[in-house]
Amino acid sequence: MIGKLIKKIQKTGAPICVGLDPNLSFVPEGIKKRAFDELGETPEGAGKAIFEFNKGIVDATYDLIPAVKPQIAMYEQFGIPGLKAFKDTVDYCHEKGLLVIGDIKRGDIGNTSASYAKAHIGEIEIGSRKFSPFNENFCTVNPYLGSDGVEPFINVCKESDRGIFVLVKTSNKSSGELQDRETDGKPVYEVMAEYVDKWGSSSMEDGYSNVGAVVGATYPEIGRALRKLMPHTYILVPGYGAQGGTAEDIRDYFNKDGLGAIVNSSRGIIAAYTKEPYKDRFDGETYADAAREAVVDMIEDLRDSSLRSE
Amino acid sequence: MIGKLIKKIQKTGAPICVGLDPNLSFVPEGIKKRAFDELGETPEGAGKAIFEFNKGIVDATYDLIPAVKPQIAMYEQFGIPGLKAFKDTVDYCHEKGLLVIGDIKRGDIGNTSASYAKAHIGEIEIGSRKFSPFNENFCTVNPYLGSDGVEPFINVCKESDRGIFVLVKTSNKSSGELQDRETDGKPVYEVMAEYVDKWGSSSMEDGYSNVGAVVGATYPEIGRALRKLMPHTYILVPGYGAQGGTAEDIRDYFNKDGLGAIVNSSRGIIAAYTKEPYKDRFDGETYADAAREAVVDMIEDLRDSSLRSE
Repeated sequence: MIGKLIKKIQKTGAPICVGLDPNLSFVPEGIKKRAFDELGETPEGAGKAIFEFNKGIVDATYDLIPAVKPQIAMYEQFGIPGLKAFKDTVDYCHEKGLLVIGDIKRGDIGNTSASYAKAHIGEIEIGSRKFSPFNENFCTVNPYLGSDGVEPFINVCKESDRGIFVLVKTSNKSSGELQDRETDGKPVYEVMAEYVDKWGSSSMEDGYSNVGAVVGATYPEIGRALRKLMPHTYILVPGYGAQGGTAEDIRDYFNKDGLGAIVNSSRGIIAAYTKEPYKDRFDGETYADAAREAVVDMIEDLRDSSLRSE
Repeated sequence: MIGKLIKKIQKTGAPICVGLDPNLSFVPEGIKKRAFDELGETPEGAGKAIFEFNKGIVDATYDLIPAVKPQIAMYEQFGIPGLKAFKDTVDYCHEKGLLVIGDIKRGDIGNTSASYAKAHIGEIEIGSRKFSPFNENFCTVNPYLGSDGVEPFINVCKESDRGIFVLVKTSNKSSGELQDRETDGKPVYEVMAEYVDKWGSSSMEDGYSNVGAVVGATYPEIGRALRKLMPHTYILVPGYGAQGGTAEDIRDYFNKDGLGAIVNSSRGIIAAYTKEPYKDRFDGETYADAAREAVVDMIEDLRDSSLRSE
């Protein structure tokens, strides 16, 4: 699957994914009103509103980008109707030819991790039939439980040609409370990077592994060190834009081949119509056009970083 | 909420919870056949089968126990219909007066963690209305992202009178890859225990905190050390029974007041009819009776450990 992602990145020239994290506060009033008029101020109404909002974003950007990254928490908060909107979003993105990175941060042990993996990136057997419940192409995985928690995902990746991104160094302020602690002369994030490198070695494709890593844009020196420790690992980079990471910060997250990283932006794109420099020219009616312009700007912003060797 | 759990444990004399982790392979053929005859070998059929199975277990045990712990992965694996069975199970357990510990192991940052917290143990606002999508009483939380990931859950606990259990030392074999690593002269699980103790100090009730910890039964010496480090923390103990933990192993997970721990058993109870010493006397028709007998035996097995000071 990582080979497929690389080809789409090369084709679009866009090492980015759009974070489909539709907080209701980002959804224009018109969309909310139509959904609530039809279904009430209910989880069903909220689910419809966020799915309609997502469709607008996807329709306006799908030809420019390789992938999207829906954050499942923003759907799960509305219960079953919200999760239905998540599933509908995944399906719609597939229809439009986009790869989907499910930002689910699941992780458990053994058979339980395998159940999450089958649900999101594999197949589940029911009697004599098989189903792919959520059917993302990649998902994010939390490694706190060690190999027992991650390997079931890797096994499903191999069976179903999918990929994962394991949390290594997250973009948030308190990530260092655990991830930066020194152990055996190195920080925890380096220990996790060594595991990711090892786990991934059994599932390589086009020079990269189907076991990627999450490394936040907000810690550029750490990103540089991790790039070297995991030369064959694709890095999913949150924290660009709204959280403060710049193109310069993440320059060294890319390998010399111009590949090796995919940068996420969520609010910076899907809520661009409410933010500088877009908000004067766009509004709730044209939120999708603003998102398209923000994508174009982001691709341009990253061009020097990602393709510097070409 | 921890006060409510303590009262129910005292009333039942049972410091245990039943793990409602209905792998389809545990569900008797008769229940599966009825569900598949009605809804086909589909996620809907699977959802119905596991909910009917759970109802049998709950009906047979609710008067003996304070709480259940459904593992959401076993439901999520069947997609939307599976998650509906999760929600129906939570609701049914509430009807029967049981507290519900959602074993969801979620964890993200800021607003995203808050969304998970609202979904599972709080309320979400939609327009002028509020909803409790999954409505568990407690949920488990993964601390890999640090305070940014956990504190939004604690805020929701305070708003909605709920509780959480933070993963500290899990029961699985590879848990030590990260959790046992020495840092600043102590293992990571001790660092996390200090955080749990600190996080919990702002939400105390009846001498215990609404921020509990998960500590596996399979590492008794670690459990003993963690008990002392977190004197006011309720410990949720997986790994008893099927995973190898014994009553003797977890004796010191309890405080001298006979409280401070709640021990989970999943397969050992819900699949008792397939296991020694029950399988000769029970079958798929009487699986719930076997579960009841297994609960009675587990309470008896733990009596000396939990109530040793009385």
